[in-house]
Amino acid sequence: MASGIRKIINDPVYGFITLDHPLVFKVIAHPWYQRLRRIHQMAFAQLVYPGAVHTRLHHSLGAYHLMCNALHELKNKGVVITPEEEVAAKIAILLHDVGHGPYSHALENKLLKGIHHETISIRIMEILNNELDGALTLAIEIFTNKYHKPFLHQLISGQLDVDRMDYLTRDSFFTGVSEGVIGYDRILKMLTVQNDELMVEEKAIYSIEKFLVSRRLMYWQVYLHKTVLCAEKMLVKIIERAQELITRGITVRSTSPVFDFFLQNHHTVTSIEAHLEQFCLLDDYDVLATIKNWMFHEDRVLAKLCDCLVTRRLLKVKLTATPVNPAWMEEQRNRICREMQIEERDCHYFLFSGVAENTTYDPREERINILFKDGTAKDISKVDNALIHQALASPVKKYYICYLN
Amino acid sequence: MASGIRKIINDPVYGFITLDHPLVFKVIAHPWYQRLRRIHQMAFAQLVYPGAVHTRLHHSLGAYHLMCNALHELKNKGVVITPEEEVAAKIAILLHDVGHGPYSHALENKLLKGIHHETISIRIMEILNNELDGALTLAIEIFTNKYHKPFLHQLISGQLDVDRMDYLTRDSFFTGVSEGVIGYDRILKMLTVQNDELMVEEKAIYSIEKFLVSRRLMYWQVYLHKTVLCAEKMLVKIIERAQELITRGITVRSTSPVFDFFLQNHHTVTSIEAHLEQFCLLDDYDVLATIKNWMFHEDRVLAKLCDCLVTRRLLKVKLTATPVNPAWMEEQRNRICREMQIEERDCHYFLFSGVAENTTYDPREERINILFKDGTAKDISKVDNALIHQALASPVKKYYICYLN
Amino acid sequence: MASGIRKIINDPVYGFITLDHPLVFKVIAHPWYQRLRRIHQMAFAQLVYPGAVHTRLHHSLGAYHLMCNALHELKNKGVVITPEEEVAAKIAILLHDVGHGPYSHALENKLLKGIHHETISIRIMEILNNELDGALTLAIEIFTNKYHKPFLHQLISGQLDVDRMDYLTRDSFFTGVSEGVIGYDRILKMLTVQNDELMVEEKAIYSIEKFLVSRRLMYWQVYLHKTVLCAEKMLVKIIERAQELITRGITVRSTSPVFDFFLQNHHTVTSIEAHLEQFCLLDDYDVLATIKNWMFHEDRVLAKLCDCLVTRRLLKVKLTATPVNPAWMEEQRNRICREMQIEERDCHYFLFSGVAENTTYDPREERINILFKDGTAKDISKVDNALIHQALASPVKKYYICYLN
Amino acid sequence: MASGIRKIINDPVYGFITLDHPLVFKVIAHPWYQRLRRIHQMAFAQLVYPGAVHTRLHHSLGAYHLMCNALHELKNKGVVITPEEEVAAKIAILLHDVGHGPYSHALENKLLKGIHHETISIRIMEILNNELDGALTLAIEIFTNKYHKPFLHQLISGQLDVDRMDYLTRDSFFTGVSEGVIGYDRILKMLTVQNDELMVEEKAIYSIEKFLVSRRLMYWQVYLHKTVLCAEKMLVKIIERAQELITRGITVRSTSPVFDFFLQNHHTVTSIEAHLEQFCLLDDYDVLATIKNWMFHEDRVLAKLCDCLVTRRLLKVKLTATPVNPAWMEEQRNRICREMQIEERDCHYFLFSGVAENTTYDPREERINILFKDGTAKDISKVDNALIHQALASPVKKYYICYLN
Repeated sequence: MASGIRKIINDPVYGFITLDHPLVFKVIAHPWYQRLRRIHQMAFAQLVYPGAVHTRLHHSLGAYHLMCNALHELKNKGVVITPEEEVAAKIAILLHDVGHGPYSHALENKLLKGIHHETISIRIMEILNNELDGALTLAIEIFTNKYHKPFLHQLISGQLDVDRMDYLTRDSFFTGVSEGVIGYDRILKMLTVQNDELMVEEKAIYSIEKFLVSRRLMYWQVYLHKTVLCAEKMLVKIIERAQELITRGITVRSTSPVFDFFLQNHHTVTSIEAHLEQFCLLDDYDVLATIKNWMFHEDRVLAKLCDCLVTRRLLKVKLTATPVNPAWMEEQRNRICREMQIEERDCHYFLFSGVAENTTYDPREERINILFKDGTAKDISKVDNALIHQALASPVKKYYICYLN
Repeated sequence: MASGIRKIINDPVYGFITLDHPLVFKVIAHPWYQRLRRIHQMAFAQLVYPGAVHTRLHHSLGAYHLMCNALHELKNKGVVITPEEEVAAKIAILLHDVGHGPYSHALENKLLKGIHHETISIRIMEILNNELDGALTLAIEIFTNKYHKPFLHQLISGQLDVDRMDYLTRDSFFTGVSEGVIGYDRILKMLTVQNDELMVEEKAIYSIEKFLVSRRLMYWQVYLHKTVLCAEKMLVKIIERAQELITRGITVRSTSPVFDFFLQNHHTVTSIEAHLEQFCLLDDYDVLATIKNWMFHEDRVLAKLCDCLVTRRLLKVKLTATPVNPAWMEEQRNRICREMQIEERDCHYFLFSGVAENTTYDPREERINILFKDGTAKDISKVDNALIHQALASPVKKYYICYLN
Repeated sequence: MASGIRKIINDPVYGFITLDHPLVFKVIAHPWYQRLRRIHQMAFAQLVYPGAVHTRLHHSLGAYHLMCNALHELKNKGVVITPEEEVAAKIAILLHDVGHGPYSHALENKLLKGIHHETISIRIMEILNNELDGALTLAIEIFTNKYHKPFLHQLISGQLDVDRMDYLTRDSFFTGVSEGVIGYDRILKMLTVQNDELMVEEKAIYSIEKFLVSRRLMYWQVYLHKTVLCAEKMLVKIIERAQELITRGITVRSTSPVFDFFLQNHHTVTSIEAHLEQFCLLDDYDVLATIKNWMFHEDRVLAKLCDCLVTRRLLKVKLTATPVNPAWMEEQRNRICREMQIEERDCHYFLFSGVAENTTYDPREERINILFKDGTAKDISKVDNALIHQALASPVKKYYICYLN
Repeated sequence: MASGIRKIINDPVYGFITLDHPLVFKVIAHPWYQRLRRIHQMAFAQLVYPGAVHTRLHHSLGAYHLMCNALHELKNKGVVITPEEEVAAKIAILLHDVGHGPYSHALENKLLKGIHHETISIRIMEILNNELDGALTLAIEIFTNKYHKPFLHQLISGQLDVDRMDYLTRDSFFTGVSEGVIGYDRILKMLTVQNDELMVEEKAIYSIEKFLVSRRLMYWQVYLHKTVLCAEKMLVKIIERAQELITRGITVRSTSPVFDFFLQNHHTVTSIEAHLEQFCLLDDYDVLATIKNWMFHEDRVLAKLCDCLVTRRLLKVKLTATPVNPAWMEEQRNRICREMQIEERDCHYFLFSGVAENTTYDPREERINILFKDGTAKDISKVDNALIHQALASPVKKYYICYLN
């Protein structure tokens, strides 16, 4: 990023990202935004896809870029968007993920019980808004869907928002799973607004189908890849074990003071209010550096789990179409307790099962409006000869089991 | 990576990387190799190029892939390469960077005085060789250029080795500096061997020129980008300050035991022999987690430097064609001491200058042999109408100065 | 193409295509194969997608490249394929489209009544086989599915053959409709053979779904694009008009003797046998050069149609979900007869309607075998949670009407 | 191209090209512009690079796209460009090649003696300007460099014009010679204007170097590829032979009336004025269809040359660093006369030599202004540590000889 009135950032996905507003510069330069450099977008996916090491900062810059393009296209089509709304929408997308903590898919409910990252994003925006004398007020209204032009919110958080358009594109790109590529540029060109609601033109139907099928593929091939799933669950088990030991009065410290704070007080911290400063210091480095130290902890369960995760000698995973046979589970349990010399109550750290599920498109919950030339609108699942049919509305479930081999 | 006799890894750069030998699997699965996942290939380049977060593990897999292709092409041309030599060359390139520590470009001489990463790579290979009952003996011979077919070594470390072909390609790709792209695939197809020396066919001349010009561009646009340079130098200053404080008897601890060990003993550890185990636990996470903690250290110099680096509020940098005016330096020195309320002897942490230099092609040190159809060979700088001329043999120097603004 | 024992051809789609067998060189060098340079793969698609000017020669080289890759993967999995079978399969795919004439999608039934291009391909192969002393015998057996390893034929002509893998990939590439891109490389890596039948491994399911959805998109967005459709139908009308005039005894000559031969004798030529030499001289240049001349023919219907096509002032087209209202048709008919001053019996040249249809996947006719780990095989439409469901088996129909405006 | 107020064209090189002005639509829809669909951009390069079949129409649309981007960037930097100038510059680039005839690199001096394609382009623009009531007046002023803002002309025809930026990019893309790729997007972002002259910012120096090196590579690897050169020269020989026979009174007709007109009157037609309508009907189809017919001409020299070109059984070519040995030439001449049974005066059709030359950068003729931060400007060859040095100013010459083998 060169200094000046316009900054250009090289992006392997889109070529160049242009920043051209002082408020955008201020937000990006803020340490709380810069923290996103130290949080991987895809957590442990890199254990399977070595290129998937891009950061949440990179994703949010990418989503910002697509927002710029989307607003540009809509204005060209005659949709009224004021300069203030434009900046606000750009700021809102830049900050949409700022409340994410490290490995948040796994840890969201572990470190800060019951607090969703979106709540934290909003709280951070409010504080920045104070620092910046109210300059973010409109951005917050749009982000929280209180603004009278819902399509601006839908661009940030909807079925065709620039958030998922960027992450599907970017995640495909960095994993090298080229099949996940979506025609984001064509979809953006086909966006339109009717009655302040975001729609897509009729001729984008096949692109939208392709978008949903790509998402389906990315879920099963990448996000819910059994090895990625396993690593994530192992991290959860590690934190659970640490918290269990702490509860039992055994010393387990993180070398990062802020991470340590959330660990030691995991029973009592249930609101972000008093702890935002600390939260905004947390990142992947605290978690992984700590886990590396715990490889040598005296608790054998904790040490073993940490060692397995750090050295990528993960638990074995099986995916099945039906729940796992309890007898087989019992057999494994006995073997593991014996081999690891642990008690049965601790065996669940090395043997656990669960369900991965994903819905391709649920018209009861989702809504992608196709605007026809005659002015009528229909959901994508209702158009003639729809690929996206009723049967895809119910979630696909796959059962997984992880176990020490 | 699926299990089985062949594993396929998705790579955004080359599509797929295929692993198909048990020894390759063993090396890759080793914790010391897996450690490379936690070391960024381009250190702080991501502060300017947000996509440049790929790892040394990814690079070494990429170089391995190019090695496979190079050997395949040479064999097709009738060059005799035995299956044993083939595996050995692949193992050697996989491990060529295994001795790199975190941020090694900056820290190579700071943590382990006078020990080059290549020395450590060799030591690691030797130990793995013991663990694997001598299976790496040939790989080590090739890596250390003791094998009687020098072209195998030249593929790993030479002017047209697969190491730099991969890193130029990969670094271009992840930074998004598409101009750095080289025609690696065409160069590989034009490789040949004469008298056991690696050469390129005559018709690759323009591709080689392009390769050298791309390298020149990557150096000035990326590797020696003033902001990247500054961040690197700031890291050096941070470690220097920590070591100075330790020497003075002031407590400065790293929360990572292994990093702490090298810090506290920086005067005495001058050989890798006794400390290899510890070294092989070190990675970027130790360094950055520690620096994050030092943001709150009581020493104001250390804390300030760490804060600036972590929050990306870097020192200001100027690049100039001539050395900096001493009077201007003096003026800055006074201002900084005054504003920071520090003594003059500490001012060098916030005000320092140096020289960045790069040579496009020095025929005295480098040698790219072009093999002509008539069987003669010439260095690329000696062919008719050479773009790569004498004037490019002397290094280009740029003076930089970094200062707290 | 350099001469020598291996030739490398640059291909923007795959990078490099390698030719390495004398028989392959001979076939490619043959004038009948070289003729494919002068036949566009996508006929009039370039009127909408200006990049879609690639040739049938380029497509067949691409399919050959994918065949090489497919055979390489299968052999690596232990499928027995002899060197003779390998060359034969490569030759068969190289020649699979050699029987195509110019604009064959439009003209297949117009110039050579009732003769399918595949029939001509086989006849050409037989003659080449004679010229080459039987070297193509095995290739012909595979092409005509008489060989005892059906999977080799299925690679050339089946649901997952390299023909359609290349044309979908290549047509996407050259049109710039990036959404049509399929993961051909992943599908190739997942191919397998059971009981001599071609199958795909279970983990390719999502890639296959994506392949079918891409094909669906390419049909509606490109192959059946209304403007492309219209241009094609206009060409048919031009030839019909010329033949009608000839039948009526009015002179209509093509400046190309071979094209002229097929035109003047369109009633009598019903077998390729006696006319193969002439057919193998026909290409797009004959047709388009002729049509350019007919722009000045005295018959106003013929001249007008040719002028419209050459200058891209095409008939207007409408696509509708239901057949066109006859009253509206009648109204247009009257207007056109009046404006063009033509008789009603000639009006059909400037006003015509039809149906475009495409089936996404019809399990009654198609079969893509998924091989599960337990050794069982199922059609893609029968696997759990299939995207490719029953409803997609019936063709989607769109009604079009073309009329002079 | 969809109808409406904005049209979007898919382009494999840039993604989408947007047309958004009525005058642009009118120009593109004109039959004289549409004719460019039928002229290949790279003539016979497709004999070596099968993908290189893109058209002059596609190139001019691409150059138009880059012009849009360039103007957008310059306006963002505060360069004053009025809406009228903007449209005019776009029209001028759209039409910059409209005066090209078929295979014009080869035929420019053969069909219309002494008339340069640029002269024809201007004449066509003038006529269109009349048809469009003077709407192209400003475009013509810019094209002919009579407008008082030279930078607009320099964008069309200068050292860094969008014409060569597109053709280098597009030709690299379609040939698959990826090394020819230039960083057109970065160069465009670095363009600037000082005193109404086009300049590039200092930080683009390495990109400009890369651009010149890529151009050098494209010349030797593609444009002057020996096989491409040979095919082009063979076409010249064919036309020469046809004209010689006509002069001798032997009947040689083209089946295309317009092509025939220029052939039969090649001695007398020396001005475009009276023949523009005819010229604007000429394209590659006339030439190649004619040559296909001449394969069967009774003149054995003409027939042989045409047969060789059409079936790609080209003359053999040698490239050498020094002129060809006369004795060797004599020997070949004798052999060819004997084998072909032709007289010596006709032998030059099957045996000829020449010189191919290209200059990397000649600062005496070219000028790429680098604008430094201090406001001074220097030619690229004069900056410190220039790669583009004096030695590259003299043309590289390669001698070629083509002969029937």
